[in-house]
Amino acid sequence: MSIVEAVSAAIGSFVIGSLAAYLIEQQEEKEEEGKEEEETKMKENIDDDDGKIKKKKKKNTWRRMFFKEAKAEAASVAGTAAPKAVKMYTRLDVAEHDSIEKRVWCSYKENVYDVTDFLDNHPGGRDLLLLAAGKDIEPFWRLYQAHVNSDVAMEMLKTLKIGELDLEKEPKVDVDETDPYKNDPERHPALKCHSAKPANMEPPLSLLRREYLTPSSLWFVRNHSPVPIIDAATHEITIVSGEQSQDNLNLLRTKAVINLEHLKKDFEKKTVVATVQCGGNRRGGLDLIKKSSGTGWGEGAISTAKFAGASLRDVLEVHAGINLHNYERLGIKHVIFYGADDMRASIPIEKALSPFGDVLLAYEMNDCEELPRDHGYPLRVIVPGHVGVRNVKWLSKIKLCSEEADGPWNRGIAYKGFGPGYSSVEGLNIDSVPTMQEMPIQSVVAEAENISLSLATTSKNDDGEKRTVVQTSAKGFAWSGGGRAIIRVDVSANKGLSWQTATLKEGADQPLSKAWAWTFWEIDDLEIDASKLKPGDEIKVLVKAVDASYNAQPEGAAAIWNLRGLNNNSWHAFTVKVEE
Amino acid sequence: MSIVEAVSAAIGSFVIGSLAAYLIEQQEEKEEEGKEEEETKMKENIDDDDGKIKKKKKKNTWRRMFFKEAKAEAASVAGTAAPKAVKMYTRLDVAEHDSIEKRVWCSYKENVYDVTDFLDNHPGGRDLLLLAAGKDIEPFWRLYQAHVNSDVAMEMLKTLKIGELDLEKEPKVDVDETDPYKNDPERHPALKCHSAKPANMEPPLSLLRREYLTPSSLWFVRNHSPVPIIDAATHEITIVSGEQSQDNLNLLRTKAVINLEHLKKDFEKKTVVATVQCGGNRRGGLDLIKKSSGTGWGEGAISTAKFAGASLRDVLEVHAGINLHNYERLGIKHVIFYGADDMRASIPIEKALSPFGDVLLAYEMNDCEELPRDHGYPLRVIVPGHVGVRNVKWLSKIKLCSEEADGPWNRGIAYKGFGPGYSSVEGLNIDSVPTMQEMPIQSVVAEAENISLSLATTSKNDDGEKRTVVQTSAKGFAWSGGGRAIIRVDVSANKGLSWQTATLKEGADQPLSKAWAWTFWEIDDLEIDASKLKPGDEIKVLVKAVDASYNAQPEGAAAIWNLRGLNNNSWHAFTVKVEE
Repeated sequence: MSIVEAVSAAIGSFVIGSLAAYLIEQQEEKEEEGKEEEETKMKENIDDDDGKIKKKKKKNTWRRMFFKEAKAEAASVAGTAAPKAVKMYTRLDVAEHDSIEKRVWCSYKENVYDVTDFLDNHPGGRDLLLLAAGKDIEPFWRLYQAHVNSDVAMEMLKTLKIGELDLEKEPKVDVDETDPYKNDPERHPALKCHSAKPANMEPPLSLLRREYLTPSSLWFVRNHSPVPIIDAATHEITIVSGEQSQDNLNLLRTKAVINLEHLKKDFEKKTVVATVQCGGNRRGGLDLIKKSSGTGWGEGAISTAKFAGASLRDVLEVHAGINLHNYERLGIKHVIFYGADDMRASIPIEKALSPFGDVLLAYEMNDCEELPRDHGYPLRVIVPGHVGVRNVKWLSKIKLCSEEADGPWNRGIAYKGFGPGYSSVEGLNIDSVPTMQEMPIQSVVAEAENISLSLATTSKNDDGEKRTVVQTSAKGFAWSGGGRAIIRVDVSANKGLSWQTATLKEGADQPLSKAWAWTFWEIDDLEIDASKLKPGDEIKVLVKAVDASYNAQPEGAAAIWNLRGLNNNSWHAFTVKVEE
Repeated sequence: MSIVEAVSAAIGSFVIGSLAAYLIEQQEEKEEEGKEEEETKMKENIDDDDGKIKKKKKKNTWRRMFFKEAKAEAASVAGTAAPKAVKMYTRLDVAEHDSIEKRVWCSYKENVYDVTDFLDNHPGGRDLLLLAAGKDIEPFWRLYQAHVNSDVAMEMLKTLKIGELDLEKEPKVDVDETDPYKNDPERHPALKCHSAKPANMEPPLSLLRREYLTPSSLWFVRNHSPVPIIDAATHEITIVSGEQSQDNLNLLRTKAVINLEHLKKDFEKKTVVATVQCGGNRRGGLDLIKKSSGTGWGEGAISTAKFAGASLRDVLEVHAGINLHNYERLGIKHVIFYGADDMRASIPIEKALSPFGDVLLAYEMNDCEELPRDHGYPLRVIVPGHVGVRNVKWLSKIKLCSEEADGPWNRGIAYKGFGPGYSSVEGLNIDSVPTMQEMPIQSVVAEAENISLSLATTSKNDDGEKRTVVQTSAKGFAWSGGGRAIIRVDVSANKGLSWQTATLKEGADQPLSKAWAWTFWEIDDLEIDASKLKPGDEIKVLVKAVDASYNAQPEGAAAIWNLRGLNNNSWHAFTVKVEE
């Protein structure tokens, strides 16, 4: 404990008391405003006789109660100057308290907090706070600057303190020096871990829809090997032509060797906001039909960032003399990227050379001057609109070739989608199906509000029929490969019998044929027939999107099931609960 | 009747007799070969104990019977030299005989034939011959050179002669001189007419899958007005910049005026094999859910041809000075095409300028030196991979513009797909959805064989379960917009519970990202569980395809229903009958 902290602790009880009182007053003011707004809304509902149902605001009585109690407690704390005896816990103690049943604890620096009673008052929602249950809260706060840009969050947290971490009892972690993964970077605790070695991790949906640019630390991680250790200052990238075009080697200006400094100095820094999605995203949904092969991803193997780097097109022209005018004559059909992790994957030369292709050799992500190690430090390829695997990380070599990359990721089965009739490799003609490049239309419901029957309203429609309906809201994202913009998102709460069109939000202004990043959508008046609903029921909120080529999503996963569990873009469902 | 024909008629009975005898002998030889092959196959079936079911050949006893009768008749004709008295009919008499119930008659030049008993022996199948029922058979023969390249078809037809046309009784057609459509070209009698004025016609599926390049006379016709009368020798095409880029007009080398001679002389003749599909193809399927608006097309508003002409990209560079390097600076975003019929439609400038766009100003179709009048004579635009309406016919003007074309076909509702929830224009924000350009993945079953229960076989699988199955065969086509190749076609005969992958045929070798034309597919071992089938049942053969971006087709039409009836690419079904 530093001197500053010790002093803080000494005057803590007073500060907590007055700040809590302040917070409560602020809260009460807000509640009063809310109440007025609510009363106006309810009046509107009563006046509303045009057959349409307006949404009522939910009265957050729980939040009010919490603040009343906190106010009383704060007053009592303010009244007694003597600090209580500090209870000491270990990180294991904290980790054990990871559910509401066991109480929800978190640590922050050396302090331990019980946040259970604050869950429903968390401005970001209880689910978000539950992600940190049993964990250190700092990596979560770092995601959302609101927590650190003002003292409010810290002061609120202090009211929940139950003790401190006994750092001397910290369990020592023995590093296995033979473990090839021992140098892998630390990952964000919110990531759901499918496999640690190699890292296969995805962010929870509740975090994924919060920011248009996914924070780099929340990006899904899909590694095939330990993260390579690379010295950016000495790292070199070679550019060669492949075996098949040996005859034309003399047409390459040289077997080029470039480094990061060259790329940054010699080429304009270009920026692309791109969504990258794993070919196996939503594989878990296919596995429910029948187990396929590979990581059982949820819906989170997709993330978006702003990347900056050199245009591959420019680099190929300058360092290999390859351009739109000569590639056909030279017999070049593919560009193969090699990663320092022994990954190799290729894309068609047309994508690399297209003036509309926007393929980057990226060295920056989300305005940070370096790529994170998990995401390709110091250099990766960004192939906008193509499946994740083509965005090779830790780039070490580029080969221009008449054939696509060998190995599992192009010529092998890994990214090939066979018909639902093939449950094993037996009888498969692997060459008969091309490997994935551009991806199909995709959409996901990331959040949806539970249904409150108390908010149901009954009205008559034009035909005099009585309808009892309740509304809910939902949010999500949609994306399509090949730069095809999202032009419409439809949402249904009745198994697809009827659909309402959602509002397109961030990302909706992308060019129709170069929409490399996802489009956020939301709907706040999704109507549900409430006449037969009862508390405890569950409702599925379904989504399907349409892209600029008017491709639509298939309804069910069964008809698109495939051995490798690729491209699950069936209608996505998010289950909400029906409450009183 | 010419002298040659008169002589022919005089010796007719002998010729018919000997030729018929010859035909019958040939047929019997083939039947014998078939029999042997069949016996071998049946033996294989008996020997076959590996659990797999092999297909049995159907014994065409009807064809044998027909030829036996014809042989007897021919012999009797050969024996009597005197010609019978000729019966005379009118075209109306022929037209009345257009079904098996009424007997099937056709005319060819001035002769009348009853082809009813030949239906099942027609080498192209009875359905194909039935298309000509009650009609003149010549336009159908012209489609298939086999009929005219040898005498066999004509000689066979002669055996079916029942009389001659009384040309003096031909009904006179009064031309209404005020009819704006009076100069429209004659159309092929096989086309199904949705509307004659303007012409909206589609070929029957049975003809559409026969030739990879759809014969020009069979192409679907989708006109908005009378076909313009244009003198190719004097026809001019102007190229201008639009109102929005007036400031940059000086950057256009000139307001160019070009003609067909310029295009042919100054520009390399480029060739593109492209499939063109109407945005409303298969609208009839959506109308079954709920009536949408527009022509209720079947599956035939799609056709394929080899087009030749000048590259739009080259023309824009040479005559307007517009290229990839300056279009953005000039603020050019769209290329608007104007037809002499007052149609106007635009495409994004990126498609026009892309080195991979292949947009043509086409003056040839299917190796014929002129476009047919219905298909844009003398010049049309071919925008490969985009919806039919962008392929403007009778091209008269090209405008480079910062905005898309005004009018119904771009900014209006005509080619915009709204959510299934919108049943009327009320409440629609028309600007909120972009107009169609590239089209989605599509596939159709064009032919499928009826199911013969007599061919069902029972076997045991590896688990000892008994299975009674029968096989059928099917053929069709698949296509996707944006040049995305067809990579897989799945076929199901059990409502989509299981799928078999079809074999890709013609068109399967197109480049993955520049597959402008359809891909033919076929399957000859589609298995059907025969255990509960009985004669008279009907089975739906379903198809769905996957393109190079792994987009799949949606299952049902309801969830993609839209007010304008666009883009029905739900699984296509073809009904076959179950026979003894």
